[in-house]
Amino acid sequence: MRWRDGYIAVDWGTSNRRAYAIDAEGRLTETIEDDLGIMNVPTGRFEAAAADLRRRFAGRPVLMAGMVGSNRGWVETPYVPCPAAAAELAAAIHWLEPDIGIVPGVSLSAGDRVDVMRGEEVQAVGALALGIAPDTLICHPGTHAKWIVMAEGRIAGFRTMMTGELFGLLRKHSILSAQLEGSVTADESFREGAAAGLAGADLLSGLFQIRARHVLGRNGPDGASYASGLLIGSDVRSGLRGHRRGAVALVGRSDLRALYAAAIALAGHEAVEVDGADAFLAGMAELTEML
Amino acid sequence: MRWRDGYIAVDWGTSNRRAYAIDAEGRLTETIEDDLGIMNVPTGRFEAAAADLRRRFAGRPVLMAGMVGSNRGWVETPYVPCPAAAAELAAAIHWLEPDIGIVPGVSLSAGDRVDVMRGEEVQAVGALALGIAPDTLICHPGTHAKWIVMAEGRIAGFRTMMTGELFGLLRKHSILSAQLEGSVTADESFREGAAAGLAGADLLSGLFQIRARHVLGRNGPDGASYASGLLIGSDVRSGLRGHRRGAVALVGRSDLRALYAAAIALAGHEAVEVDGADAFLAGMAELTEML
Repeated sequence: MRWRDGYIAVDWGTSNRRAYAIDAEGRLTETIEDDLGIMNVPTGRFEAAAADLRRRFAGRPVLMAGMVGSNRGWVETPYVPCPAAAAELAAAIHWLEPDIGIVPGVSLSAGDRVDVMRGEEVQAVGALALGIAPDTLICHPGTHAKWIVMAEGRIAGFRTMMTGELFGLLRKHSILSAQLEGSVTADESFREGAAAGLAGADLLSGLFQIRARHVLGRNGPDGASYASGLLIGSDVRSGLRGHRRGAVALVGRSDLRALYAAAIALAGHEAVEVDGADAFLAGMAELTEML
Repeated sequence: MRWRDGYIAVDWGTSNRRAYAIDAEGRLTETIEDDLGIMNVPTGRFEAAAADLRRRFAGRPVLMAGMVGSNRGWVETPYVPCPAAAAELAAAIHWLEPDIGIVPGVSLSAGDRVDVMRGEEVQAVGALALGIAPDTLICHPGTHAKWIVMAEGRIAGFRTMMTGELFGLLRKHSILSAQLEGSVTADESFREGAAAGLAGADLLSGLFQIRARHVLGRNGPDGASYASGLLIGSDVRSGLRGHRRGAVALVGRSDLRALYAAAIALAGHEAVEVDGADAFLAGMAELTEML
């Protein structure tokens, strides 16, 4: 199989695109990151947007994952239903050309509840390949954070939380904007918010505390860190529900991992951190080995 | 007292201004509503914005309430701390001129928790004057909904929920926007969302259900009504906490009352509705009688 001679793995998201060149020994030789996320590529221009990658890497095969397979992406690819493992994902790759494929997303249907992911499934497969236990809970922070239940090495179920998006909306457009301008770190203010969120604080009233403290001129926690803590604490409380024991695998960007690790520790659980890009590459390697 | 000869009561909010002319018999003779909310009046131009009202009503005294007394308004007036009744509010009116006053807001400080209101205190006083029990729970829906505990005819405590603002943010700026375009009514979709909110559904994941259903092409509740129901159900769940018995006085706009009444009924409580403008006028009458 020519995938063994090297390939291009592309993590093509909403705002950004990261292309990784992998050689015949499976080593990462080059990374290209640009802002050609799917929202920045006009409809019908995906082939052109990908052509530069192909030229640059002399026709090596390309495997893509993420929002590029959504209804706003290159082509809408079906979802693989849970439970799903690497084999199901590899078998359902959508082939645009014999050597250009898009990894499918994963869907959940559990009674009335439905859910979808695109891109995180590759990182879940990769985290397994990197050594997390086959039965574990994965937390993947982000605009739409995912809590993924892995059972016997398969994606058995998951839940999406709009945590990152909600924080962004509050920071950009709400009455709290001026109080949420600062950078967020896992400081005392963050932990105060996270503790409230973990204790089940009401988001609708808890967030207004930031406004009331400001208007009354009260000293209090930093608004940005407190709001982030409150939202992430609430997210972690919900994500950990039903999780009995064992570490949580925390897969994603380092800045978000730091925040979630702090909240998970406050909840009395241990987080094992896995870099999101490492997990993505390990997942793509796992999938290409099946081709 | 010349207030007995008639006055102008002004409900001066963030986006709109409503001025009511009251005659010597206490009857409403004219209502002027315009979009000169405080955000639409340049700093330093409030006097000019009020001059037309004064000219029009031949120098009758003016009593104002609402965001006009905030740091973005005509002049920032102090808050009266809880517990507060009509007498405390009347005594703390801020006089710009001998016959132009602004009703103070009310603040709460209960341990770590703080809260503020401006404008709703007049409606609470007015609802009492209109006959709600002196010990009751008032729900005042809005951008920042207020749940006000009245005890012995005083504002004993309250809690603000960012329910309306959050719905607006989701509708205008979020990934759910396209699914939240429709009008919201207390229909089956609203009740489905409200039931989930009342049962303690996680907002961060509950809202994403709307996205997942759409992406998967599932039939399901109308997005706008479901999201509104989920948020209002969560709001009502929190607002009713600790409320043992007796009706809830639901004071505000008729469209919002219909939604909250449906959620309150689903929670097994009864709502007695009071029109917000009626409550405002009754509250201003109560205050001017003390001048």
